[in-house]
Amino acid sequence: MTIQKPSIPKGTRDFLPEEMIRRNYIFNTIRKVFEKYAYLPIETPSMENLSTLMGKYGEEGDRLLFKILNSGDFMAGVNFNEGTPYQLAPKICEKGLRYDLTVPFARFVVQHRDKLTFPFKRYQMQPVWRADRPQKGRYREFYQCDVDVIGTKSLLQEVELLQITYEIFEAFKIPIVIKINNRKILSGMAEIIGLPEKITDICVAIDKIDKIGKENVFAELREREIPEEAIVKIEPFFDFSGKNEEKLAFLEDFFAESEIGKKGLEELKTVFAYCQEVGITAPELDITLARGLNYYTGAIFEVKATNATMGSISGGGRYDDLTGIFGLKDMSGVGISYGAERIYDILSECNLFPDEIGAPVKALFLNFGEMEELYALKALTELRKNGIASELYPDKAKIGKQMSYANAKQIPFVIMAGEEEIKDSLFTLKNMETGEQIKTTLREISALIHFRSSING
Amino acid sequence: MTIQKPSIPKGTRDFLPEEMIRRNYIFNTIRKVFEKYAYLPIETPSMENLSTLMGKYGEEGDRLLFKILNSGDFMAGVNFNEGTPYQLAPKICEKGLRYDLTVPFARFVVQHRDKLTFPFKRYQMQPVWRADRPQKGRYREFYQCDVDVIGTKSLLQEVELLQITYEIFEAFKIPIVIKINNRKILSGMAEIIGLPEKITDICVAIDKIDKIGKENVFAELREREIPEEAIVKIEPFFDFSGKNEEKLAFLEDFFAESEIGKKGLEELKTVFAYCQEVGITAPELDITLARGLNYYTGAIFEVKATNATMGSISGGGRYDDLTGIFGLKDMSGVGISYGAERIYDILSECNLFPDEIGAPVKALFLNFGEMEELYALKALTELRKNGIASELYPDKAKIGKQMSYANAKQIPFVIMAGEEEIKDSLFTLKNMETGEQIKTTLREISALIHFRSSING
Repeated sequence: MTIQKPSIPKGTRDFLPEEMIRRNYIFNTIRKVFEKYAYLPIETPSMENLSTLMGKYGEEGDRLLFKILNSGDFMAGVNFNEGTPYQLAPKICEKGLRYDLTVPFARFVVQHRDKLTFPFKRYQMQPVWRADRPQKGRYREFYQCDVDVIGTKSLLQEVELLQITYEIFEAFKIPIVIKINNRKILSGMAEIIGLPEKITDICVAIDKIDKIGKENVFAELREREIPEEAIVKIEPFFDFSGKNEEKLAFLEDFFAESEIGKKGLEELKTVFAYCQEVGITAPELDITLARGLNYYTGAIFEVKATNATMGSISGGGRYDDLTGIFGLKDMSGVGISYGAERIYDILSECNLFPDEIGAPVKALFLNFGEMEELYALKALTELRKNGIASELYPDKAKIGKQMSYANAKQIPFVIMAGEEEIKDSLFTLKNMETGEQIKTTLREISALIHFRSSING
Repeated sequence: MTIQKPSIPKGTRDFLPEEMIRRNYIFNTIRKVFEKYAYLPIETPSMENLSTLMGKYGEEGDRLLFKILNSGDFMAGVNFNEGTPYQLAPKICEKGLRYDLTVPFARFVVQHRDKLTFPFKRYQMQPVWRADRPQKGRYREFYQCDVDVIGTKSLLQEVELLQITYEIFEAFKIPIVIKINNRKILSGMAEIIGLPEKITDICVAIDKIDKIGKENVFAELREREIPEEAIVKIEPFFDFSGKNEEKLAFLEDFFAESEIGKKGLEELKTVFAYCQEVGITAPELDITLARGLNYYTGAIFEVKATNATMGSISGGGRYDDLTGIFGLKDMSGVGISYGAERIYDILSECNLFPDEIGAPVKALFLNFGEMEELYALKALTELRKNGIASELYPDKAKIGKQMSYANAKQIPFVIMAGEEEIKDSLFTLKNMETGEQIKTTLREISALIHFRSSING
């Protein structure tokens, strides 16, 4: 037997209990809000047919797909002397790991359309995989939490997603700013400068504004053969600050001659009006917000934490034809995605994880030996019947070691019963935080632990 | 744009909301029990290094591993003319998908030993992947729910796992029988017949008793070169029925000359004694229970549902050296695994899913048009603030269509507000089950829905 040094693939992670408890707090908080807003869970397989995934994420995305080698004789009929690795891979791999939750969702909606009720409101919280170069904060396996409604064009849904977003981050105590734009505003801009066919080039360039700044965006536009007079025309888009109302007034003038621009403006105004009705802060109109994904057709959102320097922690938008590629036309939807790992990082950095989630186990019985063990065992069974998460140290180890165990697991109460306690049918309860000890009945211990849990969560 | 027929890889599944809600009920029920018994969650990556997985599940297992094609130029330095697919696969794939939760757990314990507190009690509920031929009830991606404690030899832990098992299936209302044996009993048997080195062959053959019957097990033992006189000696093992006490008495005699057999007997007796102390039914001693996995060294368990014909729904045992291959000796542990899909099937077949989990959304506001919509929207926001999962139909569709939506989503209450209700600041509430309607205030509606939820769960 050769001994192997234990390790895991780069870019992947193990989660220890302390991290799991924090991660579950994040997922549960998000899930609770999703469910209150009447979204229901679905799950899709980790593997999709490669044909479902390929070509949906651009050439770069195709390269980042993890491909699964066909079982059995994967080599049959394949000539490895002809073709590049990139061309040969799909011949020996029929399946790939999910790259995001959006394409599988579109595939799911079309495949199960007869069983679903539309508008279909779903959430999905599952890992995705990308063969990206691992670096700080970027992993090859990470979770996405997506919420989407598909089958309605109502702008009420945009506002619902904004409500959900505010509520989630309020629960986390993370202060945020939501930025909003509308793809039709960008289309209108392309129309006004007489280059409607250049909309994708324009969006790709503008999308980088935060990272590279205005001048470099202009340089990229020039590279993409946008003429100088067009750039001059759209420059005001980038020099813009002020309130939403001022921006709307500017756009009103700017889009006098663009139908699509006017439509985008109309949609924005409706969303702002609904926000007022439901009593939430209107998102900040950012007319340079583009978001790279080319399936967006209406509203687009981006969420930033104001207490952290990192990029966006959430984003989404409306798409009118996501399901078209799988054969289902006219299914407008809108969705938003929350990144669990970034939320985790902010909560950690800002020390925002609630204390009470750290102590899932409430009590430990110490083990003093065979006879005492049986006495403790019965009491333990009773505590658990009362719904108290608790345990008995399984061996008669040194007391210091047993106490360290309680400390490491952050167990707030230790319960001891030696000869004397057993004689009186009592137990000694030690509060691990204060050090206080009392000798009392099991019933009182149970009540005490319940009381402490109820105030500490 | 070519249109693709949507499909998923064979042996994998999509889960629609109705199924997800049921699956989550299963996972939550199991998780609650695990946590009450002071087990903490961990997670490991979906991908492991292939070197971690290969050779741990036998040759058949190696073939069933899903392998992930190396990113980039996977062909560099590989001669595809030399070697079989089976030999070449590891050269182009460094990683594979998790096959079970046990080997990753062993790897995890060794890798993180410095950060863990022993005895380490963990649970893990994650999917695993096997390239098995798909058939009814057998999938290529399925969930395992494993609970293990490692770092103690105390037989208290065996009993704790039995308690957990009874409690989980009691929560599901699934009647079960737990069978128990001890690998040392089987080792003792091999010793008594003078063939201690044949223990693996004997276990593999005996493991099939349920499927192929006694005569065929004997035939297989003969094939594995177990002499006739040995088979005669162990025959009583198979003709055995009666109470645990009778079986123990038989074994007492049988193992007069076998130290290891006596040790196994001792362990069984201790477990039975603890069962009595904590007030649970002792598991049924089945001295032909072998379980195929060769890492077991002590107690072995198997759980069957008595209301279903399928095989075991849960199983596990004690292992003394699972972590040895990764370089950590003397780490005895014991664990048990619950199969979520089989539990799902039994709950479905026997109609045991609780009714109340089926209606996560409590109320739907109908949409009567622009003005009414705003009135409903404010009331909706209020209901959600009160913690009631509810929604507003986003479009002014035909009432019949909106009602069908409520029915399909099993929403128990529909709320209507037209001109008249708005004038009086009231709402009409319709109970979708009874058909009753009342006109009342939002406050009362909120109280009513809360009351109904509190009695129906």
